[in-house]
Amino acid sequence: MQSSKNIAVVGSGLVGSLLALYLKQTGHKVTVFDRRPDVRKVEFSGRSINLAMSNRGWKALRGAGIEKEVRKLALPLDKRALHVNNQALYFQPYGKKGEAIYSISRGVLNRKMIDLAEKAGVKFQFEEKVWDIDLTEAKLFTGASEKSEWKEYNFDLIFGADGAFSRIRHKMQRQSLFNYSQHFIDVGYKELSIPANADGSHKLDNASFHIWPRGEFMLIAMPNLNGSFTCTLFMPFEGEISFESLDTETKADAFFATHFPDIKDEISNLKRDFFKNPTSSMVTIKCYPWSYEGKVTLVGDSAHAIVPFYGQGMNAGFEDISILFEKIAEYKNDWEQLFTAYQEARKPNTDAIAELSYRNFMEMSSKTADADFLLRKKIEKQFAEKHPDIWVPMYSRVTFSDRPYAEALAIGDAQRTIMDKIMKLPNIEENWDSEKIEQKILELTSSKNVLDT
Amino acid sequence: MQSSKNIAVVGSGLVGSLLALYLKQTGHKVTVFDRRPDVRKVEFSGRSINLAMSNRGWKALRGAGIEKEVRKLALPLDKRALHVNNQALYFQPYGKKGEAIYSISRGVLNRKMIDLAEKAGVKFQFEEKVWDIDLTEAKLFTGASEKSEWKEYNFDLIFGADGAFSRIRHKMQRQSLFNYSQHFIDVGYKELSIPANADGSHKLDNASFHIWPRGEFMLIAMPNLNGSFTCTLFMPFEGEISFESLDTETKADAFFATHFPDIKDEISNLKRDFFKNPTSSMVTIKCYPWSYEGKVTLVGDSAHAIVPFYGQGMNAGFEDISILFEKIAEYKNDWEQLFTAYQEARKPNTDAIAELSYRNFMEMSSKTADADFLLRKKIEKQFAEKHPDIWVPMYSRVTFSDRPYAEALAIGDAQRTIMDKIMKLPNIEENWDSEKIEQKILELTSSKNVLDT
Repeated sequence: MQSSKNIAVVGSGLVGSLLALYLKQTGHKVTVFDRRPDVRKVEFSGRSINLAMSNRGWKALRGAGIEKEVRKLALPLDKRALHVNNQALYFQPYGKKGEAIYSISRGVLNRKMIDLAEKAGVKFQFEEKVWDIDLTEAKLFTGASEKSEWKEYNFDLIFGADGAFSRIRHKMQRQSLFNYSQHFIDVGYKELSIPANADGSHKLDNASFHIWPRGEFMLIAMPNLNGSFTCTLFMPFEGEISFESLDTETKADAFFATHFPDIKDEISNLKRDFFKNPTSSMVTIKCYPWSYEGKVTLVGDSAHAIVPFYGQGMNAGFEDISILFEKIAEYKNDWEQLFTAYQEARKPNTDAIAELSYRNFMEMSSKTADADFLLRKKIEKQFAEKHPDIWVPMYSRVTFSDRPYAEALAIGDAQRTIMDKIMKLPNIEENWDSEKIEQKILELTSSKNVLDT
Repeated sequence: MQSSKNIAVVGSGLVGSLLALYLKQTGHKVTVFDRRPDVRKVEFSGRSINLAMSNRGWKALRGAGIEKEVRKLALPLDKRALHVNNQALYFQPYGKKGEAIYSISRGVLNRKMIDLAEKAGVKFQFEEKVWDIDLTEAKLFTGASEKSEWKEYNFDLIFGADGAFSRIRHKMQRQSLFNYSQHFIDVGYKELSIPANADGSHKLDNASFHIWPRGEFMLIAMPNLNGSFTCTLFMPFEGEISFESLDTETKADAFFATHFPDIKDEISNLKRDFFKNPTSSMVTIKCYPWSYEGKVTLVGDSAHAIVPFYGQGMNAGFEDISILFEKIAEYKNDWEQLFTAYQEARKPNTDAIAELSYRNFMEMSSKTADADFLLRKKIEKQFAEKHPDIWVPMYSRVTFSDRPYAEALAIGDAQRTIMDKIMKLPNIEENWDSEKIEQKILELTSSKNVLDT
C-alpha cells in the first residue's frame, strides 16, 4: 500500500477520470481540474468520433471494477461492413467467433466515468483553467485568463491528462532535452449522424462498423444505444473533393448522392450536420520523457496522441493506467522510479500504435476496397483460421490482446513480408486457397522466429 | 522596388541582424527587438562554438555589400588537422586549392553585424522581451515579464529570427496544422580555450580545423584573430566518460592528460574553462509552415535549428536571407505569395542540411579516426581530383557551392552507394589506387544520372 498523497489530475476526459478513480481507490486524495464545463451539464460538441472499446480498454476498466457498468453503454461490433459502390455489402469479421469491438459514444462514456469517479470520492473542479505548473514543486496555477490573477495550489504529485494540446506538456516542452513532435495529417474529419427509425431501431446493421471507402475520402458509421449512428466523414481539408470545396448545399447534395447512394435517404440529415458541425484536425504527438522527477507525469493523449484509424486512442490511454498501476504495485512509494519505469515501458508501445494508426490511415481509405488487398486479407484469414497457433492477424494482436503494441508491430511486419511474397506467386488469384499456398506460408513462417510470442 | 513597410525583426543574432540590414537597404523601416542586452556591451557567454563561414554565408554577406568588412574578421582554414592518439598529425584538405572555410568568433561577428545594421539605419531595441504576437494583425507585445503590463506595437510585417527557442514560432505552434519537432541529442558541448603564445602567435597551426576524434567524445579547436583557439568539447551528458562523470579536478586532469596528450601543456586552461563554462545541449528543430499569411515568417534557427556538425547552421540561416530576397525580387509587394515561395523553396533544403548535420554527428566522432573511413576518403579524393567534372565530394557540394542542400544530399547518397561497392572489392586496401578501381568507379558513376548537376 502506498502512503496517501495529495494528487492533482489535469483533465477530466476519459483517461483523466479513470486515473482519478484508480488513484482514489488506492487511498490518495484526488482533485481533477478541467478548463471546460462539466460534460454532464452541456451538450456534446459535435466533434467526436465514436469510441471502439477493445481488450486493453476493458482490462483497465476491470482493474477499477467498473467494466460491467460500462458494458451496458456499449454495442458489440463483430465485423466491418464495407459499402463499396456498385458492389454488394461485404462483411469482414474482426476476429474469431465471440470477438468484437464495442461502440460507445464518447460523451456518454465520459459522463459515466466522471459519475463513477465522483461517487468514489474524487473532487472535480470544472471551468478552472490551469495556466502554469511548477514542475519541481508540483504547484498548479489557475485563473480566468493567462494574464489574470492566478490561484496557486500545492500538490504532492500532478498528472497531465489534458489531451493532445496539453498545457502540462507545453510547460515541460520548454525544458532542455525534452524531445517533442506534432505532425498533422492533411485530412480532417466531421461528425455526422443517422437518426434512429421511428420505432427506435437502427437503420443499418447495428453489429457492424460501417465503412464507405472512397479512395481520397471515407465515411464511417458506428451505432449508438438509442438507435442512431454516429458517422464520421474523413476528407482532405483542401483540393478537388475537400471540406473547402464542398461549400454550397447543392455541392453537398451532389456529393452525398454520388458517393453514398445506399444511404441517400439520409442526405438531409448528413447535410445539416455537415454545415453545422466543425471540421476537426488530426495529429500525431510524440514526446519524451513523460515525467519530471517523482512529481509530474503525462498519461493518454498528452503523452502520445495518435490518429484514430486503428480505434486505439482511448485503449492506449487506458492501458497507460494499467501499466502505471503495475509499476505502482512494484515500486510502492518511490514515485521517481515508478514514473521512470512507467514511461520506459510505455514509450516503445505508444510509438508502435502511433505508427500502426498512421499506416491504417494510409491504408484504410484507399485499400479496403482494393481487390488485391481483399484477397490478401482472405488468404491471411483462411490461414489464421486453420493455424491459429501460428498466425494471429495484426488486427487481433492489437485489438483482442494485451501483449505489447511494439510486439504486434514487429510480428505484423514479419507477416507482411511473408504475405508480400505470397501475393507475388503466379496465379495467386486462382489458387489462393490451394494446399500449395498453405504449405508455402507454413514454410515461410517456420523460418520466422519473430512470429513466436 | 517594394513599397516601404514598417517591419519588426525579433532577434538580433547573426541572421536577424543580416535580415534587418537587407530590409533597410530595400527601403523599409526596421526595428530589431532582443530580450538580451546588446552583445556589444557585455562579455561573451562562454557557450559558443566558433563559426565556419563558407560559400553560402559569404554569398549572403556579399548581397548586402559587407563581405569585405567581414573577411577581415576571419581566418581561412583549408584543411582538417586530425589528432589521433599514437599517430602523427594527419591533414585532410577540405577542397581544391584555394578553397577554405573561415573561422570567426560568433561574438565578434555579431557585434560587427549589429554595428553595420545600425549604421545603415536599423533601430535596435535591446533588453525588450517579446511575450506574445498577434499573427493576423502583426502586433508584438513586450514587457518585463510574462505577467507584467505589456506594451503593444503595430507592424506591417514581423520576422522571427529569435533562434531555436523562438517565441514567435512558439505562438505559431499552438495553431492547428502546424507541424513541429524538437529532437535533442544525448551529447552536450562546452566551450574551452587555448590562449595565444606570449608573442601573440597561435599555439597550433592556424590554417587548420583541429579535431581530436575519440569515439564517444571529440574535441575541436578553431583559431581566432588574436592568437587564441576556441575549443569545443563534445561529450555525452551521462555515462562512463561524460560531463556528469567528470566532476572533480583530479578526474578532469586525468581526462585531458590521457586523451589529449599533444596539448597537455594546456590542461590548466582547459580545466579552468571546463568548470567555469556551462554545458550546452544541441537540438534539431523542424517546423512547417514557416509563415503566417503575408504577415509573419521565420528565418534561421527558429525555422530550422540543426546540430553543428556540418558547420552550416549560420550558413543555412544566411542563405534563407538570400533566397527570401530572390523571392522579394520576383514577387515584389505580394508578401503572402513571396513568403509561400520562400518557405517552399527552403524547406526541402533545410531538411537536407539537418539530415546531413545529424549524420555527421554520428560519423565525425567515431569514424574520422577509422582506417576504413580514411581509405574511403582517400579513394574519393583521388578520384575527385582526377575527374573533377564527374565527382564533386559531398563536403564540397555543401560547403563550396550554393547549389541546393537537397541536391547535395541526393548526390551524396548516390556516391555513398558507389563507394560502399568499391570498399567491398577484394584487396581494396592494397589496390585502392589502381587503374582497375578507377575504371570501376567510372563505370558505376556513368550509370548514375543522379551525379549530374
